[in-house]
Amino acid sequence: MNMGERTYYVSHFIDELYQNGLEHVVVSPGSRSTPLAMTFAEHPSIKEWVHFDERSSAFFALGMAKKTQKPVALVCTSGTAAANYYPAIVEAYYSRVPLLVLTADRPHELRDNGAPQAIDQIKMYGAYTKYFHEMAVPENTEQMKRYARRQASRSYSIANHPNKGPVQLNFPFKDPLVPDLTLSDLWGSSTQSFVNHITGKEQIDASAASQVLDLLQGQSRGVFVCGELHSDEAKEHLLQLAKKWEVPILADVLSNLRKHPYTNEWVISTYDAILKQEEIRNNLDVDFVIRFGSMPVSKPYMQWITAQRPEVHIVVDENQGYREPTSIETTMVFSEPASLLKQLNEAESLPEIDRKWSNFWFENNQTATEILTLNQDELTEGTAILALSETIQEESVVFVGNSMPIRDLDTFFLNDYKSVQVMSNRGANGIDGVVSSAMGVAATGTPVTLVIGDVSFLHDYTALFIAKQYKLPVRIIVVNNNGGGIFSFLPQNKDNKHFEALFGTPFNPPIQSMVQGLEVPYEMANDLNHLKELLDQPIHFEVIEVQTNREENLNWHREQWQKVYEQLKRDGLS
Amino acid sequence: MNMGERTYYVSHFIDELYQNGLEHVVVSPGSRSTPLAMTFAEHPSIKEWVHFDERSSAFFALGMAKKTQKPVALVCTSGTAAANYYPAIVEAYYSRVPLLVLTADRPHELRDNGAPQAIDQIKMYGAYTKYFHEMAVPENTEQMKRYARRQASRSYSIANHPNKGPVQLNFPFKDPLVPDLTLSDLWGSSTQSFVNHITGKEQIDASAASQVLDLLQGQSRGVFVCGELHSDEAKEHLLQLAKKWEVPILADVLSNLRKHPYTNEWVISTYDAILKQEEIRNNLDVDFVIRFGSMPVSKPYMQWITAQRPEVHIVVDENQGYREPTSIETTMVFSEPASLLKQLNEAESLPEIDRKWSNFWFENNQTATEILTLNQDELTEGTAILALSETIQEESVVFVGNSMPIRDLDTFFLNDYKSVQVMSNRGANGIDGVVSSAMGVAATGTPVTLVIGDVSFLHDYTALFIAKQYKLPVRIIVVNNNGGGIFSFLPQNKDNKHFEALFGTPFNPPIQSMVQGLEVPYEMANDLNHLKELLDQPIHFEVIEVQTNREENLNWHREQWQKVYEQLKRDGLS
Repeated sequence: MNMGERTYYVSHFIDELYQNGLEHVVVSPGSRSTPLAMTFAEHPSIKEWVHFDERSSAFFALGMAKKTQKPVALVCTSGTAAANYYPAIVEAYYSRVPLLVLTADRPHELRDNGAPQAIDQIKMYGAYTKYFHEMAVPENTEQMKRYARRQASRSYSIANHPNKGPVQLNFPFKDPLVPDLTLSDLWGSSTQSFVNHITGKEQIDASAASQVLDLLQGQSRGVFVCGELHSDEAKEHLLQLAKKWEVPILADVLSNLRKHPYTNEWVISTYDAILKQEEIRNNLDVDFVIRFGSMPVSKPYMQWITAQRPEVHIVVDENQGYREPTSIETTMVFSEPASLLKQLNEAESLPEIDRKWSNFWFENNQTATEILTLNQDELTEGTAILALSETIQEESVVFVGNSMPIRDLDTFFLNDYKSVQVMSNRGANGIDGVVSSAMGVAATGTPVTLVIGDVSFLHDYTALFIAKQYKLPVRIIVVNNNGGGIFSFLPQNKDNKHFEALFGTPFNPPIQSMVQGLEVPYEMANDLNHLKELLDQPIHFEVIEVQTNREENLNWHREQWQKVYEQLKRDGLS
Repeated sequence: MNMGERTYYVSHFIDELYQNGLEHVVVSPGSRSTPLAMTFAEHPSIKEWVHFDERSSAFFALGMAKKTQKPVALVCTSGTAAANYYPAIVEAYYSRVPLLVLTADRPHELRDNGAPQAIDQIKMYGAYTKYFHEMAVPENTEQMKRYARRQASRSYSIANHPNKGPVQLNFPFKDPLVPDLTLSDLWGSSTQSFVNHITGKEQIDASAASQVLDLLQGQSRGVFVCGELHSDEAKEHLLQLAKKWEVPILADVLSNLRKHPYTNEWVISTYDAILKQEEIRNNLDVDFVIRFGSMPVSKPYMQWITAQRPEVHIVVDENQGYREPTSIETTMVFSEPASLLKQLNEAESLPEIDRKWSNFWFENNQTATEILTLNQDELTEGTAILALSETIQEESVVFVGNSMPIRDLDTFFLNDYKSVQVMSNRGANGIDGVVSSAMGVAATGTPVTLVIGDVSFLHDYTALFIAKQYKLPVRIIVVNNNGGGIFSFLPQNKDNKHFEALFGTPFNPPIQSMVQGLEVPYEMANDLNHLKELLDQPIHFEVIEVQTNREENLNWHREQWQKVYEQLKRDGLS
């Protein structure tokens, strides 16, 4: 007994996803999802990945979708399986990553009556999906095949249109669940998507663009600020505009303007170090800010800008996105960034910039870079990143964990004319699912170096099974400070009574034996040179452990900020 | 800089939970949750547990709350941390386990504007909490302390009142986050809960109870059916009623009527084996069913009852609970089970039961027990449970994983006058969070033997850190059939093309080195006698691996059903 011709409903749905551009599906084993899982496996052009942990699977799909900037599908069975997707769906929603979440469900007559593995899956991800649809029970009629195709095409388009994000389709399946894969013409004869989706870009008109320029009249000390931004076109326009206007770009490590074949001297990557001391932040007046992409990682930047409250603070975002936690923005521009930047580049008028201001950033960026990078020979959480920066393979991705690693990368992964992409889960900044996300990036064919703390690594340990099974090119650098290193930077560090138990949380993870227990290659970096040697090898699946001490780490970081500060004081503030 | 006197808001909230009966809180490290985490740690009478993986933490709390049948609190920071609780919250909702989910959040002005680790936490668990409240920002006024106490007391009561379940309180916290634990009279002077909650029981009146008895007039072939049921009082009444009426109780392994100091001969634990063949199910007519607790695990029972459609099918549940997936119930009785059972026991009228019918169950239960238990000397997934049944320590808990282990326990963990409790996550029957839940039971002080499959074990591997850190008495029996053994019982087993990749899912987990990598004691059971020897040792933290083969397992199980069937045929159906 199998589904018979009702299989067409499922196969047409899946083929339509393919016609729209779907390349990958991540399936977690289960019974109720059999129609989707088996039919996806049969499709000749969609690559199917199988992983047993749904939480990890969803982050894995997120990594793939993040890298390709295209929807990736997820398939799971009914019940708590679907609830395990939640953390990755939340992350995808905030980081604007397109996911097609296909949850199998019991049919209506087996819901809400104590049947096993039947939970209420209707809109179960609440506010975190762009679109939800409860699919009809499969039937083999022309109308229902059209409907299945239409829903596939439409959902793909919704997930993929800015602001990109997750979509949930819930599929009720009745027994029998095994599809008939011997049917003739299983995929239909489509060679293109069922519905064309022709969608416009959000653009402001010429008069609105000159309104933006008018705001800058008489403002001479300004910066561009750039966080995570996906459009290459936008980045090229921004670099060009910075050069034309001679305005520095405070470039977050996730802007990917730093290590880039077309980076330029106006890209300031040490602004976090420069702004670290309150004295500097209070004395460095700024007239205007134009910010693109997500909010940068740097806390000193945020403190500076909040203290300064520049007269003109323009935030550019799309589709009513509203990412400005300081609440001091003066103008929101809702436009595709590339489109606005092109308009600014083409405008004849431009602001008159104070040369001294521009030189301050240009020169101090060079000085700070030297202080941070030269004469470092101790192996620390910071110099490990310097070693990575030096040795990193062209056309590879650095995926970076939240908490300390992203901050260290922001400080120490500086300008270079290399084509390297830095990625991170900065939608909700969780320490969960980071290993899986990095594996997802590697699954698209790009070698990945993951830099991650010990707690975050342990949190997502099951992801190692994916790399092992699929032989993915992922090098994992585990910065092991035996606990939550970032908390040492917080005030509760002074509370000796509860600090270690609640925040330090030393789990004493035996990283080496845990990794080798899974038969994964492991290396311990003994010192900075040894680490460089290890990193100089081509990227392959392995774990490199860098052991550090939380207290020493705190002090070492403070020394670096002090050195930069003293140099700034010697040079005099602009 | 610390919270100063605003700490009282938090400390009064926490003390009030204690006054209501809270004994345990499970905290995951984070910054925003500092006020709750540190103040809980300071409370002299609440035990604080710390674990880094929020998914696992929530299942750990669920295990504690399931065993104690009292609310356990959870504390996490803002962001995806809270989303990781979702699977356990769904499970708690369906299995009626009281949880107090305390999510720390950014204050309103730092929400929905791109601030880090700020996600929309308002009602983020959708339909799965009994109650949600967005707490006020802490203030130190008499009114606000009263409000904090009232909300604590009320939430505890809601979570704990049938049907028990999860409650979410979301706490916005502003900087600074460190509480002042040096304040005088931190906990206030309460020695009892702020508000008394006097709550009634759901009971039907005498005339309604005799209406139930009237339904049974002229029905002579009946069964009681009992799934998971928490009330000891209800169980005693049920055993007494079965004896009085001479009606068999088809007792699911989770009913805990089988291994119990006061079990009796009317408890039929082999009904799954007896009903396995369709021929038997079609010929065994039944007039009435009275069912208590959750739906039993047994699929043959469900098929039998659906095929038979008894004239009277009474389901007893509380508070509009509606757990009857067959949709053939004829009467729903909404009453606390103990209360209804007491009424039936005290009634003078009783149904006239066909002796032949009662004897059929009584005798075949003995025969089937012998067939299933005697002359077994091979180590199989079934005989491993027999070995456990034989050796199990008094006053301990057997926690059992979903998928195959629960089915094997249902078949092979038979009657015995031992005081052993069997527990499982049968709200949504997930394979997730099972190790953590078992750890939670052990954390209440009861030794636990966990029986779990390899995929489910891997899914929740990080839970091992809890047992290691807190030295919990948990013995884990991993039944390793290298993949999803249960799928071999499904029709897709015949599809050789996609079966192994999608359902068999052989991950080849190196259980031994993974476990030893974490420095956890490990044993491999070589044969049945060796397993018995291992199980005869007092329970301590260790992993015992039982390796089996999925194909052999399928065949071995089929042989057992065949043997029972042949015996039934020889004896003639009743």
